[in-house]
Amino acid sequence: MTILALDFGGTKLAAALVNIGSRKWLRYERRLSPENANANTDLEIMRSLIYSLLQDTKPSAIGVSFGGPVDASTGTVRLSHHVAGWENIPLKNLLEDEFGVSVGVDNDANVAALGEHRFGAGQGYDSLFYITVSTGVGGGWILNGQPWRGVGGMAGEIGHVVVDPAGPICLCGKRGCVERLASGPYMAQNAREVLKTRKGGEILRGLVDNNLELLTGQLLSEAAAAGDDVAKEILHKAAWALGVGIGNVANLMNPQRFILGGGVTKAGEDFWRVVRQVARETALPEVDFEVVSAALGDDAPLWGAVALAEMGMA
Amino acid sequence: MTILALDFGGTKLAAALVNIGSRKWLRYERRLSPENANANTDLEIMRSLIYSLLQDTKPSAIGVSFGGPVDASTGTVRLSHHVAGWENIPLKNLLEDEFGVSVGVDNDANVAALGEHRFGAGQGYDSLFYITVSTGVGGGWILNGQPWRGVGGMAGEIGHVVVDPAGPICLCGKRGCVERLASGPYMAQNAREVLKTRKGGEILRGLVDNNLELLTGQLLSEAAAAGDDVAKEILHKAAWALGVGIGNVANLMNPQRFILGGGVTKAGEDFWRVVRQVARETALPEVDFEVVSAALGDDAPLWGAVALAEMGMA
Repeated sequence: MTILALDFGGTKLAAALVNIGSRKWLRYERRLSPENANANTDLEIMRSLIYSLLQDTKPSAIGVSFGGPVDASTGTVRLSHHVAGWENIPLKNLLEDEFGVSVGVDNDANVAALGEHRFGAGQGYDSLFYITVSTGVGGGWILNGQPWRGVGGMAGEIGHVVVDPAGPICLCGKRGCVERLASGPYMAQNAREVLKTRKGGEILRGLVDNNLELLTGQLLSEAAAAGDDVAKEILHKAAWALGVGIGNVANLMNPQRFILGGGVTKAGEDFWRVVRQVARETALPEVDFEVVSAALGDDAPLWGAVALAEMGMA
Repeated sequence: MTILALDFGGTKLAAALVNIGSRKWLRYERRLSPENANANTDLEIMRSLIYSLLQDTKPSAIGVSFGGPVDASTGTVRLSHHVAGWENIPLKNLLEDEFGVSVGVDNDANVAALGEHRFGAGQGYDSLFYITVSTGVGGGWILNGQPWRGVGGMAGEIGHVVVDPAGPICLCGKRGCVERLASGPYMAQNAREVLKTRKGGEILRGLVDNNLELLTGQLLSEAAAAGDDVAKEILHKAAWALGVGIGNVANLMNPQRFILGGGVTKAGEDFWRVVRQVARETALPEVDFEVVSAALGDDAPLWGAVALAEMGMA
């Protein structure tokens, strides 16, 4: 009995096949989305990955992680913020019609939370909050061992929790959202503004040959690790924002664990130290929790898709 | 079949008896705690209320609301912030031994949430957050129709969610907690500081004959309703803090309803308008919710205790 796991990731597509109960992929395919991708091209590429994986196998169930808002109760994609044409696509129905098995679809943060819960850093923890800090900041809940999606499927949006009402303006219109301070692209933008207005940041400037448009969150991490003052300042503010967000969530929901994944969380020990310290200071002394690193890395959505498919079979 | 509901409220004690299924108290007793009350005097007074209520009746179950942290799984009071001697009192066991029926004990915010869910403004809403704004600010969750207490029983602490990291210092050590900006005593303190340092607030000054120590949250509401500039400013900031807190919680948990109770929420239409507007602006546009007034008033903990007792009988 095999499960097919699919990950529509916005810039990349991945599919994997696993025997039920196994922790190793039987087969695995990954492909970048083309420039100017739309829902149709994404679906065509995913189909080719699937048929290449399946060969003559028929999976027992399919789980899908989608990088955007999903109505998990119907398996309908609401839209993608990265790829055009995904508005109201009944992805679950499309796949069930084509493959004749049960399909579960949910957004990537919820699915990754499920993946870490079943197979990663959340094993044995029945209530946890998974946070991905990458090009965006999102989260997914496990409460009492089950995903908590909220009444409209919108729960987990820690990226747009306000932590600094005097902070810079976010695309969402508010000031000082966690995502505005801690996501990779916004950190790069913050660094650009600092470097344009004052001295310092020599390592950062060197990494991009003074072409500030080339700055990325990744380069900020590298520069901070090498001791760059501006990079350290920006990452410190990002870690502070995450720490306040986590501490506030701890006070509100009192989960056992926070699991952090995504590229920004690879920024090194200083980053983690500030996140943990600020979270601890923000939560009440009686509120216990741990902040740990995700264990499944980029495969969290795929492993979560496996768990989602298994839930649909139960 | 009757249920006995008890409310240890910090400054007052209440007990009521109800026929199962009825929405009207059969008998009801309320008493203020004496000055210098301790756990023993509270328990003695409550006993006398109970025996006066019960006469020859034997209740089928007992539900208890306690104004302080409780381990709801064991029914043990952790402590009271208002009354000495409550540390680690096994209240559930004490009552079960004395009355020979099953007893449920939880903290007042969780119990009031349950009360509003079963009998008040939360009827028909399976996921809601109840917030009390009074001498303190606390909250209680209903998710999937059940109380969510968090792994250590600490969930719902919206009072110590930080909404303004540049705000005034709270007793908990942080700056700009919701409670620091929106609770009655802290609003009175904020008003005192404003009135000491600048002109204005003539109505407020008049209400206390210029004795600023006499200011209360209640008087602020009255002064604001009468058009006092300083009172309106303080209440506006309180409503803003609650609105940011509610909007952030909406993004994180996506419940259907927020139900607000407690004395401060009687501050009038301006207050409610700001709470709702700021909450709406803080939440993402896709996140739907309502902010409504509690329906049970001071009896919410007692009605919640009825619901808690019924859950223990099921």
